[in-house]
Amino acid sequence: MQRTKIILPEDRIPKQWYNIIPDLNGPMAPVVHPGTLQPVTPDDLLPLFPMGLIEQEVSTQRWIDIPDEVRQILAQWRPSPMFRAHRLEKALGTPAKIYYKYEGVSPAGSHKPNTAVPQAYYNMLAGTKRIASETGAGQWGSSIALACQMFGLECTVYMVKVSFQQKPYRKSMMQLWGADVIPSPSNQTNAGRAVLERDQDSNGSLGIAISEAVEDAATHEDTRYCLGSVLNHVCLHQTVIGLEAKQQMDMIGDYPDVVIACHGGGSNFAGLGFPFVADKAAGKDLRILAAEPISCPTLTKGVYDFDYGDQAKMAPISKMYTLGHDFMPPGIHAGGLRYHGAAPLVSQLLDEGVIEAKAVGQVECFEAAVQFARAEGIIPAPESSHAIRAAFDEALQAKEEGKEKTILFNLSGHGHVDMASYDAFFSGKLENYEYPSEAIEESLEKLPKVDM
Amino acid sequence: MQRTKIILPEDRIPKQWYNIIPDLNGPMAPVVHPGTLQPVTPDDLLPLFPMGLIEQEVSTQRWIDIPDEVRQILAQWRPSPMFRAHRLEKALGTPAKIYYKYEGVSPAGSHKPNTAVPQAYYNMLAGTKRIASETGAGQWGSSIALACQMFGLECTVYMVKVSFQQKPYRKSMMQLWGADVIPSPSNQTNAGRAVLERDQDSNGSLGIAISEAVEDAATHEDTRYCLGSVLNHVCLHQTVIGLEAKQQMDMIGDYPDVVIACHGGGSNFAGLGFPFVADKAAGKDLRILAAEPISCPTLTKGVYDFDYGDQAKMAPISKMYTLGHDFMPPGIHAGGLRYHGAAPLVSQLLDEGVIEAKAVGQVECFEAAVQFARAEGIIPAPESSHAIRAAFDEALQAKEEGKEKTILFNLSGHGHVDMASYDAFFSGKLENYEYPSEAIEESLEKLPKVDM
Repeated sequence: MQRTKIILPEDRIPKQWYNIIPDLNGPMAPVVHPGTLQPVTPDDLLPLFPMGLIEQEVSTQRWIDIPDEVRQILAQWRPSPMFRAHRLEKALGTPAKIYYKYEGVSPAGSHKPNTAVPQAYYNMLAGTKRIASETGAGQWGSSIALACQMFGLECTVYMVKVSFQQKPYRKSMMQLWGADVIPSPSNQTNAGRAVLERDQDSNGSLGIAISEAVEDAATHEDTRYCLGSVLNHVCLHQTVIGLEAKQQMDMIGDYPDVVIACHGGGSNFAGLGFPFVADKAAGKDLRILAAEPISCPTLTKGVYDFDYGDQAKMAPISKMYTLGHDFMPPGIHAGGLRYHGAAPLVSQLLDEGVIEAKAVGQVECFEAAVQFARAEGIIPAPESSHAIRAAFDEALQAKEEGKEKTILFNLSGHGHVDMASYDAFFSGKLENYEYPSEAIEESLEKLPKVDM
Repeated sequence: MQRTKIILPEDRIPKQWYNIIPDLNGPMAPVVHPGTLQPVTPDDLLPLFPMGLIEQEVSTQRWIDIPDEVRQILAQWRPSPMFRAHRLEKALGTPAKIYYKYEGVSPAGSHKPNTAVPQAYYNMLAGTKRIASETGAGQWGSSIALACQMFGLECTVYMVKVSFQQKPYRKSMMQLWGADVIPSPSNQTNAGRAVLERDQDSNGSLGIAISEAVEDAATHEDTRYCLGSVLNHVCLHQTVIGLEAKQQMDMIGDYPDVVIACHGGGSNFAGLGFPFVADKAAGKDLRILAAEPISCPTLTKGVYDFDYGDQAKMAPISKMYTLGHDFMPPGIHAGGLRYHGAAPLVSQLLDEGVIEAKAVGQVECFEAAVQFARAEGIIPAPESSHAIRAAFDEALQAKEEGKEKTILFNLSGHGHVDMASYDAFFSGKLENYEYPSEAIEESLEKLPKVDM
């Protein structure tokens, strides 16, 4: 039998997260208070986050212990499997070897519980009673709902309206796990009401939903805020993916020439990529590639500058690749990739030239996802299809050049709850929407003037 | 850390299926031709099945080799994990230990690919070009679509109309994997047209859909028929579940007092249960329990007699527990359990008193499924919730009696594609429909007169 699945025993779940900060080429830019435009202090963040997470956000320790209680829950689906895509390689006729790490085995069906669980845990430790958060496609929302359920916390999720409508099953999952789900923009917050006044039919965006959740947390004593991507501690928690993948590659005596993940806010990319960035820093020769949608081209058409994390300018300002906090991406089917900014850590690595980024169209992504599903069986989430598209392009280039190549990508989630998107694809209703450069320029004019 | 997940290495995927026929207390009743009312010969079955499967259907060998090509594909999700439900035990406050084997890790999200893959394989070997089959909830239909895709066969699935409407995502999955999906009763077959003439608004049933698929296969030269449950070879293929479960129990030095699976046609029950029946035959003291819906109480309110496998009397006649081939179960949300009959193998074991059966209401099943999902994370398929309900009842009885007990049940699939059923449950729209005894009696009057 050909080896298909590369499985680690339970005791090989990482005992520590990998923090990339000490391995960056230079210091990180400060995070700036949206009101004072001065660097934030840990105390500024306390209304939003528990100290356990704030410490991780700013830590310069390379390795951070994973609490046993967290590892115990992660053990339900970790170590996640890695697959060699024999059937796909044959279907593509490529000399390349294709591996994928599969995060769809978590109860929520994506990589998001990897960080939802520790976030809920540290909040539970700090006495938080209720979590307010936001969600795009619903992968994060369902994951934080699940994690809150496991640690006895209440949970309110502001769900981007276009996803609320397109993905009713994700909403139902959150409700099943006990969360309140509110379509955003809503009339529950000042931020939501302000958007609705301008545009009653707003599709919503992650930026707006973040504003609502942050406002909710800031205005309720017992409530704190959780974010499913972008922040340093979120990237940190996701490194279990790459740490396992390296063990799995080691187990079969192989190593990737290129590592690929889709990119929305950056957590899934960071999760697989950062442990390989460490290898690259140590002298390994490999490429690390982020695949983002052409309709929300943060890394490929944005600028590297200070910007607000949310639409209503309530969230902290970070130095990151951004399309402008007012950027309103179209309602593409990979709702989890509709964010105007990028993780500051990912942004710095891109600026330093350590990693690469490319933008891919959703039609080509769904084409690749269908071919993948027919060869490998697993139905990919629309977000993950961006990584698949980029992996296909690498494999097809290897075929054209007649070169061997080892490709590893992250299949960040399954698409069982996203079948309506596949229906839209099959019925020819999907389009590639390329955002006009002028609109991006206009949006970028609204960046805050930070002098650092 | 508490051990949560019991994982076998890839080389422990069973190399042989377990055939229970030589371990039955007596010989099996013959299968009878629906036209002649005489025992069928293998030749009678050749228009419907390839010889490789017919041989398995009648084999009296205890162990049957699993072809390497089949094992290679099964290896993508097998061995499937077994979990110790620590959090659930705590939530129920029971002294019982609860284990569950989890089949939702297959690409189709249920146990059905375990048999779809070998069925497609033997058809491919026999030169079949196209498969016609039926599906209730869509778990079987999506699995046979996937398996056909992997072996290059075309696939047509007749889907029970109520599920076609309730479960659009399952339909989309089949289409994604390349199948034609037709709501049943349809006007594509004589069987379907006959039903529509009597009742234009028929919800459909598995019995009708089987008639349509059998007719399709019998009337097209290049087409053969596949069934997702009931038949001996289907039960055979599913024994990988129980064979792995026994190894997993062995690995942790435990053994179940009671083994539970939900029951529709019997394949999932056979899959987990039969390898434990072998232990019982060899002297082990344990109970093996089938949990069926009160709205389709084949095992608990049916009779053990000869009956047609389908509504239109085209499929072979078997001796089995049956509610009558004309029985039309209500449109309950566990569409996969809406079949009038039971696997002849399961039926004979029940008649012999080797196994037990109980009927449970869907409202109580969903209550248990919600509590399970909140404790364990995994969202169960509505079918699987019947096993969960029965496991809860055992665990709560152990609590009442203050007794230790080891419970093992099969979580046959996840419910990500069934969230609309959970919505219906939460909005109070689900009812327990108990079929009136008179209606069952009336239906049972139509059994064929077989003299054997």
